[in-house]
Amino acid sequence: MTPTFTILGTGALGGFYGSRLLHSGATVQFIAHSDVEFIREHGLRVDSPLGNLHHQPVAVYAASDAIPPSDVVCIALKTTQNHLLPELLAPLVHDGTVLLNLQNGLTAEAELAAAFPQAIVIAGLCFLCSNKIAPGHIAHLDYGLVSFAPFDERGAAWIPRLMSAFAAAGVPVESQPELTAARWRKLLWNIPFNGLSVLLGMNTDGLMADAEARALAEQLMAEVVAGAAVCGVQFADHFPAQLLETTAQMKPYAPSMRLDYLAKRELEIEYLYRRPLREVARHGVRLPAVEAITRLLTVADRYNRSV
Amino acid sequence: MTPTFTILGTGALGGFYGSRLLHSGATVQFIAHSDVEFIREHGLRVDSPLGNLHHQPVAVYAASDAIPPSDVVCIALKTTQNHLLPELLAPLVHDGTVLLNLQNGLTAEAELAAAFPQAIVIAGLCFLCSNKIAPGHIAHLDYGLVSFAPFDERGAAWIPRLMSAFAAAGVPVESQPELTAARWRKLLWNIPFNGLSVLLGMNTDGLMADAEARALAEQLMAEVVAGAAVCGVQFADHFPAQLLETTAQMKPYAPSMRLDYLAKRELEIEYLYRRPLREVARHGVRLPAVEAITRLLTVADRYNRSV
Repeated sequence: MTPTFTILGTGALGGFYGSRLLHSGATVQFIAHSDVEFIREHGLRVDSPLGNLHHQPVAVYAASDAIPPSDVVCIALKTTQNHLLPELLAPLVHDGTVLLNLQNGLTAEAELAAAFPQAIVIAGLCFLCSNKIAPGHIAHLDYGLVSFAPFDERGAAWIPRLMSAFAAAGVPVESQPELTAARWRKLLWNIPFNGLSVLLGMNTDGLMADAEARALAEQLMAEVVAGAAVCGVQFADHFPAQLLETTAQMKPYAPSMRLDYLAKRELEIEYLYRRPLREVARHGVRLPAVEAITRLLTVADRYNRSV
Repeated sequence: MTPTFTILGTGALGGFYGSRLLHSGATVQFIAHSDVEFIREHGLRVDSPLGNLHHQPVAVYAASDAIPPSDVVCIALKTTQNHLLPELLAPLVHDGTVLLNLQNGLTAEAELAAAFPQAIVIAGLCFLCSNKIAPGHIAHLDYGLVSFAPFDERGAAWIPRLMSAFAAAGVPVESQPELTAARWRKLLWNIPFNGLSVLLGMNTDGLMADAEARALAEQLMAEVVAGAAVCGVQFADHFPAQLLETTAQMKPYAPSMRLDYLAKRELEIEYLYRRPLREVARHGVRLPAVEAITRLLTVADRYNRSV
């Protein structure tokens, strides 16, 4: 049977995946913050190369509402809001509730599992280019793959059901057996391309076309490879070069951090940069260029939101 | 006897020191590029807390003119013009001519000595905040110390005469016995503060007031200390911290690279960053954060001059 879904965070990511699931016939309810009244009145719009959808009425709640239980809670908040998760999730998590974490970055799953031992924690790594362009209005630009990886063996049994549900919604899916490896694999792309897209004001095509920017991306990737290794994750030797080549070939892509920056939203520096640096530092290793980029981003982010 | 001077490059730096020397009664001639006709007609203006000066008439030449010999040629071009030096200096260098290199960065003195073995090469490290604000018009903002260091023992004998001449012109002077140490000591400040002032769009006060920017400056300084060490230059343990403290105390200062950036001039990345990285790499050592900053500056510089 198709599981039922609660989408926590009805933005670029949650709005898109929730809309796809809803369109496929799944039972989906949304939790929104600033847009809750707007969506209640006007519904949820998602423009996409897959077809434009307008859901109305749609089951939308404020976090403070009494919210019916569901099988799966998809965590689709920016990690900058993670300090709110314990309070937001408490009424949503029951025995055996699946917490599907769609966020970027490292260490959030361990925090969720520690806070909610009765939940089944699964990561859904999203390869999505999507943007909220107005209240209750999402523009899906490209991509959309979700790569599932379980936090522990309880999640492994759930993954086929999630894959079926997302696949039925027209979302490309895959699964990876090892969460830490999956997270570092994504960081290998996110750390260079998110940061450089902000610091240099370029999308992937601009970064890849500039020899110095590309060299810097390679330098950062080499450090991430070293960081992953001390955390027990080995990449095939050719993998970073292949990832760069894929990036050069793909349609110009605005990394999510660049979209956040342009919208003057807080950047996800903590989970994308500081947490990985901290995990690596536990093993006595430093990633100096990643550190330097992290510090530049921190200053740029603060300035960006102050003007 | 006071030596006679040729100032090669009548910009923020050459215009200021040439003006001071001229005002003290020394014989000074200037070589200018775009401003030569303007200065010939309107003279040279230098506004300064030391008093505003207007020199007219002033001995000013284009590089292609027949230029009378002088005892000392002060090299006051940006290092971005150093590819022109062999041709520009050839007619100015005679047996025993002093080449006083007032530029920033590393390795220029060795290049000068190799190209002009008949010359006496001396470095004059300038701690100056000055800007060209219009043709033939310099605004001296603050500071002005020149620290003299000889390329070889022939220079050592000349340094007291140069110090006397500059001191008589109201310029603070000092001397350092060891050129490589003097250059690295200056890089210890220039590498963090020039680059960060451009990348973060801040003067020294802004950088020092921001904890992350300051941490990044410290990270870069630690790498420069390591780089200097493999090149044979040891700093006292407390020196970087003291230099930071001095920077925090000093009047807000726009590093020269920031002034260049704001004026959309090419940045001195080659001599301030790439040459030091190359010297360190000769010893098998890399400075990863400095490398990352260098690459960011390269992209930023190219973009800045393209728009």
